[in-house]
Amino acid sequence: MATFIEPRILKGFRDFLPPAEIARRTLLERLEQCFRSYGFVPIDTPALEYAEILLGKGGGETEKQIYRFTDKGGRDVALRFDLTVPFARFVAEHRGELSLPFKRYHIAKVWRGENTQRGRYREFTQCDFDILGSDSAAADFEILLLMRTALLSLGVGAVSIRVNHRGLFNRFLARIGALERSVEILRAVDKLSKIGREATQDLLAALLDPDKAREILRFIQVKGSFEETLAHLAEAVGGDAPEVQRLALLRRFMADTGTAASFVLDPSITRGLDYYTGLVYETFLHELPDIGSVCSGGRYDNLTGLYSKDTISGVGSSIGLDRLMAALEALGKLDTRASYTQVAIACMEENAAGQYQALAGILRHRGIPCEVLLETGKLTKQAILAEKKSARWLVIPGADPLKDPLTLRDLPNRTNQEGLSIEQLIARLQEKRL
Amino acid sequence: MATFIEPRILKGFRDFLPPAEIARRTLLERLEQCFRSYGFVPIDTPALEYAEILLGKGGGETEKQIYRFTDKGGRDVALRFDLTVPFARFVAEHRGELSLPFKRYHIAKVWRGENTQRGRYREFTQCDFDILGSDSAAADFEILLLMRTALLSLGVGAVSIRVNHRGLFNRFLARIGALERSVEILRAVDKLSKIGREATQDLLAALLDPDKAREILRFIQVKGSFEETLAHLAEAVGGDAPEVQRLALLRRFMADTGTAASFVLDPSITRGLDYYTGLVYETFLHELPDIGSVCSGGRYDNLTGLYSKDTISGVGSSIGLDRLMAALEALGKLDTRASYTQVAIACMEENAAGQYQALAGILRHRGIPCEVLLETGKLTKQAILAEKKSARWLVIPGADPLKDPLTLRDLPNRTNQEGLSIEQLIARLQEKRL
Repeated sequence: MATFIEPRILKGFRDFLPPAEIARRTLLERLEQCFRSYGFVPIDTPALEYAEILLGKGGGETEKQIYRFTDKGGRDVALRFDLTVPFARFVAEHRGELSLPFKRYHIAKVWRGENTQRGRYREFTQCDFDILGSDSAAADFEILLLMRTALLSLGVGAVSIRVNHRGLFNRFLARIGALERSVEILRAVDKLSKIGREATQDLLAALLDPDKAREILRFIQVKGSFEETLAHLAEAVGGDAPEVQRLALLRRFMADTGTAASFVLDPSITRGLDYYTGLVYETFLHELPDIGSVCSGGRYDNLTGLYSKDTISGVGSSIGLDRLMAALEALGKLDTRASYTQVAIACMEENAAGQYQALAGILRHRGIPCEVLLETGKLTKQAILAEKKSARWLVIPGADPLKDPLTLRDLPNRTNQEGLSIEQLIARLQEKRL
Repeated sequence: MATFIEPRILKGFRDFLPPAEIARRTLLERLEQCFRSYGFVPIDTPALEYAEILLGKGGGETEKQIYRFTDKGGRDVALRFDLTVPFARFVAEHRGELSLPFKRYHIAKVWRGENTQRGRYREFTQCDFDILGSDSAAADFEILLLMRTALLSLGVGAVSIRVNHRGLFNRFLARIGALERSVEILRAVDKLSKIGREATQDLLAALLDPDKAREILRFIQVKGSFEETLAHLAEAVGGDAPEVQRLALLRRFMADTGTAASFVLDPSITRGLDYYTGLVYETFLHELPDIGSVCSGGRYDNLTGLYSKDTISGVGSSIGLDRLMAALEALGKLDTRASYTQVAIACMEENAAGQYQALAGILRHRGIPCEVLLETGKLTKQAILAEKKSARWLVIPGADPLKDPLTLRDLPNRTNQEGLSIEQLIARLQEKRL
């Protein structure tokens, strides 16, 4: 007896069957459409890089999760675990070929050997977009605006983009004499939305004296409108600091574009990551706040510091596509088509396959995608197959498919229109906006 | 002094800068458009699989080239080296979820540690499309027709799709008593176009007696038209075999669709690979025959044989995207845009960035992608930056960008149109079909 290899995939990895892959591609195409309409351009980098490049900053969670191995040429290599580190390497390597400010997007898979019990995948898609080489408020704002445009284009409903300024936070920490613990403080504050106010206070109190911990908790409270919170922060740092001016200018840009309702100034947003130095932001869906941030990022001072002495700053954001897909599914808003075609041509006679393709060619040429069914058989069976493939219409050709009258079957309604010429068929289908 | 990590990528791997990535995406989008218009649907599978799954057939070149390692969970894993083996595993695993005939496409990267001296890459993109679960001539023909449509859509000029039938070849070998050496004979014949007639005859003579070698060389000659060659083959196998009927039917479908000029019956096409059993084909560009086949494939009897006792046959094809990109570049037909936008809005005043974005929003809403420049500076400098980003038009706003008259600069012609309202600006840009 033959023995078979069990067909299975690795834990944390997924197959995408057509409906899921079509849904995924629909989202990606909408995002790309937005990026492109703003003048952002795509790049790509290798999935595999020297481990030294990817692990530069070294250690910690990354080292534990990365897929790293020695290739047949003895090189120490690894699969990329995000798109930021390869982007830094890319910019350092191609600095002379890029016109700054450089606006790029990068949509690609990344790999992390994460604990799958937390509902995480080991292979997932990241969508990053960044503006490199401009310190302007205009660049900060363009990323914020593009985040909003891109997310709204997906049909997830209203969003709250919660923004803060790391520089302002640090200024405040300096003022209360707590700047030297800023990294730990930022990480503690970053947990606020997950662990709550009290637990955060405990974390802070372990780092600082209780008075200072309380002061920090007062500082990070949203005080109402953007302006009110900004006034509260300005007061806490002792007046009109450059970071306050930057936030005020961004607030003005929001008003100028009629987008102010999508933004909240939230001093508790810090982002855990070391490299942010200016604006930081996270994005929540009104209809599904519990899934957490679906799009986050910030401004950084020195992207390429590991690889070169050139200092290049930028501002960028990353969309978590898998989380968004789950959100859209939960909201019942995921594209669930099983095909891009809504029209199928029935197979009445094996030897007429060429003529069915000629008929299909006329429809495709007129902008109507259509699938030619390949096997003869009862029309009811062909109709069931067509419906399984998401077709809405079945074209039933005559003995001479290009000359004889055609029948158009409306599959969900089980009705036929008979005696159609090809032109009439096309007109009917175009009316339905296929 | 700080030490830096040298920014570099692995040999055989590539970065795609925006112009190359835009060109690549343009090709992929055109291909996808074709696949979708025929009712083919996308799938995706993991980049990483159990090595046992990928190496099932085992050994040889694959084993030498595959990126294989042990993951942190002790699993023996590898990066996919093609899209056929993962597809077989996918079908065996999800058999019950697929409606047959199943028409799928899969565009994804694959990895092989090839010898880069032959101009090969270690990371490259494959575009596979297959019809599973139909033995019909209609399915064979649909793949052939889609190959033609897809390649023509890329603008590579005329193509020759050279087809043959492996079953017919085997029938001939049986007739001359050489069937037991068929695998070696097929591989020898597969080399004909590379090594020439004489060297092929030597290879065959090493396998068989010289008379049989000569007979095989006579058999594999193109005799003129499709019909003439088919008549010659029919005679050589002793009459009207089922394979001859299949080829005659395909010839009829070609005539019915007006595509016969793109197809050649070429008995020397065998494809080296074991798993083909029926139709086989390779595609050559008229303008660049020397780059070899850009799209090849065939019919197979048993895709999932390694993983399950279910026998599922199919027919499919694979486009070598990297080779096609090189071809289009050689023909000067590669899309060389540096951006998807042709319109840039100048930055006259830092604090007006919100209003520039509001203006840009109106244009984008009317279907005109446009980039907002982010830094103030001399207009000539901004014009140079815009041109580097492939912009054709620079919009120069007034002090109130949404109310004051606008100037539209034609960048390549260095001419200005002044005093435009937003509506007039949009009309001008729409005339240019942006």
